Amino acid sequence: MEQLTIKSSTNKYPIFVGTKLRFKTQALIGKEYNNIMIITDSSVESLYLQDVVNSFSEDIKISYAVVAAGESSKDISNYYDLMTAAIKNGLDRHSLIIALGGGMVGDLAGFVAATYMRGIDFIQMPTTILAHDSSVGGKVAINHPEGKNLIGNFYPPQAVIYDVETLHSLSDKEIRSGYAEVIKHGLISDQLFFDQVRSFDITTKIKDEDLTEHILKGIAVKAKIVELDEKESNQRKYLNLGHTLGHALESELGYGQITHGEAVAIGMLFALQVSENIYNSPLPYKELYEWLDRNKYPFQLPSLSVETLLGRMKKDKKSRDLTVQMVLLKGVGQPTIETLDDELLSKYLDDFLRELGKS
Amino acid sequence: MEQLTIKSSTNKYPIFVGTKLRFKTQALIGKEYNNIMIITDSSVESLYLQDVVNSFSEDIKISYAVVAAGESSKDISNYYDLMTAAIKNGLDRHSLIIALGGGMVGDLAGFVAATYMRGIDFIQMPTTILAHDSSVGGKVAINHPEGKNLIGNFYPPQAVIYDVETLHSLSDKEIRSGYAEVIKHGLISDQLFFDQVRSFDITTKIKDEDLTEHILKGIAVKAKIVELDEKESNQRKYLNLGHTLGHALESELGYGQITHGEAVAIGMLFALQVSENIYNSPLPYKELYEWLDRNKYPFQLPSLSVETLLGRMKKDKKSRDLTVQMVLLKGVGQPTIETLDDELLSKYLDDFLRELGKS
Repeated sequence: MEQLTIKSSTNKYPIFVGTKLRFKTQALIGKEYNNIMIITDSSVESLYLQDVVNSFSEDIKISYAVVAAGESSKDISNYYDLMTAAIKNGLDRHSLIIALGGGMVGDLAGFVAATYMRGIDFIQMPTTILAHDSSVGGKVAINHPEGKNLIGNFYPPQAVIYDVETLHSLSDKEIRSGYAEVIKHGLISDQLFFDQVRSFDITTKIKDEDLTEHILKGIAVKAKIVELDEKESNQRKYLNLGHTLGHALESELGYGQITHGEAVAIGMLFALQVSENIYNSPLPYKELYEWLDRNKYPFQLPSLSVETLLGRMKKDKKSRDLTVQMVLLKGVGQPTIETLDDELLSKYLDDFLRELGKS
Repeated sequence: MEQLTIKSSTNKYPIFVGTKLRFKTQALIGKEYNNIMIITDSSVESLYLQDVVNSFSEDIKISYAVVAAGESSKDISNYYDLMTAAIKNGLDRHSLIIALGGGMVGDLAGFVAATYMRGIDFIQMPTTILAHDSSVGGKVAINHPEGKNLIGNFYPPQAVIYDVETLHSLSDKEIRSGYAEVIKHGLISDQLFFDQVRSFDITTKIKDEDLTEHILKGIAVKAKIVELDEKESNQRKYLNLGHTLGHALESELGYGQITHGEAVAIGMLFALQVSENIYNSPLPYKELYEWLDRNKYPFQLPSLSVETLLGRMKKDKKSRDLTVQMVLLKGVGQPTIETLDDELLSKYLDDFLRELGKS
C-alpha cells in the first residue's frame, strides 16, 4: 500500500492506494464513528458494498443508500432523498458518510456530507480510474439541467481509500475515460510522466502495480496544484485542460453518449492544436492523437454546430463575463490560461472538428 | 453609523448598523461586482427592494428574486428555483447575492450563495431584529420536513448592512421575536446588558439610537463567541440557550403558530428553571418572566405531550446519540452545557408546562 498526504485549507487527509484495501476500511479510517452511511450506485453495490460493510466490527451502526448508476443520478432529487435517508438512519454531526463508487457517487455523496447538518465527515472510496481525479481536491457537487456541477461546495474528505483491485471490473470505455485524466496530469506536469503513460497499452489488462503507480502519480500532480490553489482562483484552472470543449461535448451529445474522459481527450487535442497556433511552438499533438487512436478513443462525432458548442463553452462556470477561457500549453508541463476571442475560437473549432471527422 | 468587524475562519467582514444604510448599499459594499442578484421576500419587496436597487449605479446588472414571506419558504424547492434564477440571470463566480430580509431570507439566500458554483459572495441586509442573530456567524441553511436547518453550510457573508429604519415596519409579534434573542445575548454575557434590555418597554416605538445599541451589543456578544468557535464544537452552543425546547415547540405547534423568538423565550424560562433545580443557585427566572409577560409574550400554549416534545428535542441536530443536551446557566453570563437524563427532563418539562399554563 502506498500513501500520500494532502493539505487542504481546513484539514490534512491521507490517500491510500493499494490492493485489498476495501477489506480494511475500518482500520484505515483510524477514527471511531458511531454511525456510518455508505452511499454507492447500483453497479458497485453488487460488487463491493458487502466487502466494505464486512470490514467494520459489528458494534458500529452501518446503513447504506444506493442510487442508479450514471451521471444523471447526480441531481437534486437524489440529493434530497439521500438527506432524508441520512435523517432516517439517525446520522448526527459526529457520523460518517462513505462514498463508494466513481466520480458521480463521490461528488453526490460528498455534497450530501458537506451540507448535512452543515457538514459531517466523509471518506472517498473510488472504484474507477477517473475518480483518481475527482476524489482528491475537495470539489463536490450535483448537476443542474443548465450545466454540470453548478451546485456544490469545496469540502475535502477525511481520507481517500483507493483499492485498485476494484478497477478490474471497469469496462474498456471506463478505463479509457479514466486514463484521459491520467494523461492530462502528465501533459500539465512533466514529459516523463506523459511518456510513461503513453507507452502503455490500456486495451489489455493493466497490472495492479502499474495502476497503483499511475494513480499515485496522477494524484500527486493534482494534489500539488490543489494545495497551491484550493478554491480555483489561479493554478487550479490548469486541471481543466481539455475540459472547456470536453464539457461542451458532453452536454451537447448528452451524458452517457460519450464518457467524460473521452470528451476530455478530444478537448485536449483541441487545446494542443490551439496552443500550437497561438504559441507557434511544437507540441505532442500527433503523439497524443496516435496514443488515443491506438487505444480506441472515439473520434467520430455526429455533426455538431460550432455556434452551439461555443454557446455551451461560454456557460461553463469557469467562464467570466461570457468570454471563453481555455487552458493551453506552451510546452508539456507548461500550462497557461488564455481568454479567447469568439471569432478566432470559432475558426479553430471549425477547423479542428473538420479534421477530426476526417481521421 | 456604527461598525463592527467579525473574523471568520475564511474572511473578515464588517457589520454596519445605522439609519438610511439601504440607500448607500453600493458605497458600503466597497467592492465592484459585475452582476448582482437580490433575494427578498414578498413582504420586504414592496417596502425596501427599490431603495436597495436604486442605491446602485446604472452600469451594474441587477436582478432580483422574490420568495413568499414565512419560514415555509426555506425549503428545497425555493432553493432550487433560486439556483435556476441565478443561472438564468447569468451570475458567475464573481457575482454577488444580496439577502434582503429577515432570518428566513438570510438563511435561504446564504445557502444559495454558498453552493452556487461552489460558493459566491453574499451580503446580508437584515430587516428584522431577530436577524441580528442569524445574519452574523455564517450559518446558512434550509429546512427539511424532519427538522429545521438540517441542510446547510457554514458560510460567512462579505458584509452585513443593517438599516435600523427598516425595523419600524415590523409587527409587535416580530419585535417580540427579535428581542427574545437580544435578551438571550444579555443572559449569556452579562448582567448589565440583561438589565438594560429588561428596562425597556418594547410594546411602544423604540428609538433608532436604542435599536442600534441593542443590536450592536447583541451582535458583539454573538461575534465574540463565534470567533472562538465558528463550527459549534464548543462555546458556540451557548447561543442555543432556550433553543432546545424552543425548536421543539416551533415544530410541534407548526411554524407560524408561534414565532421563533416567542418559542425561544419560553425555552429560556425552562432553561432557567432547570438551571435553578440543578445548580441550586438563584437565577432571574422571575425577572425574565415578568418582562416577557409585560411585553405580551404568549404563555398560553395548547395542551402538549411531554413525550412528543422530548422526542423532538432529541431530533435536534445538536443532540448526540439521541440524548438531550441543553444550555443552562450557573448565573447570568455563565452558560454551561449539560446532558440530561430522559426521566429527569420529562419531570422538569411536565412541571414547567403545568406551571406556565396556570399563569
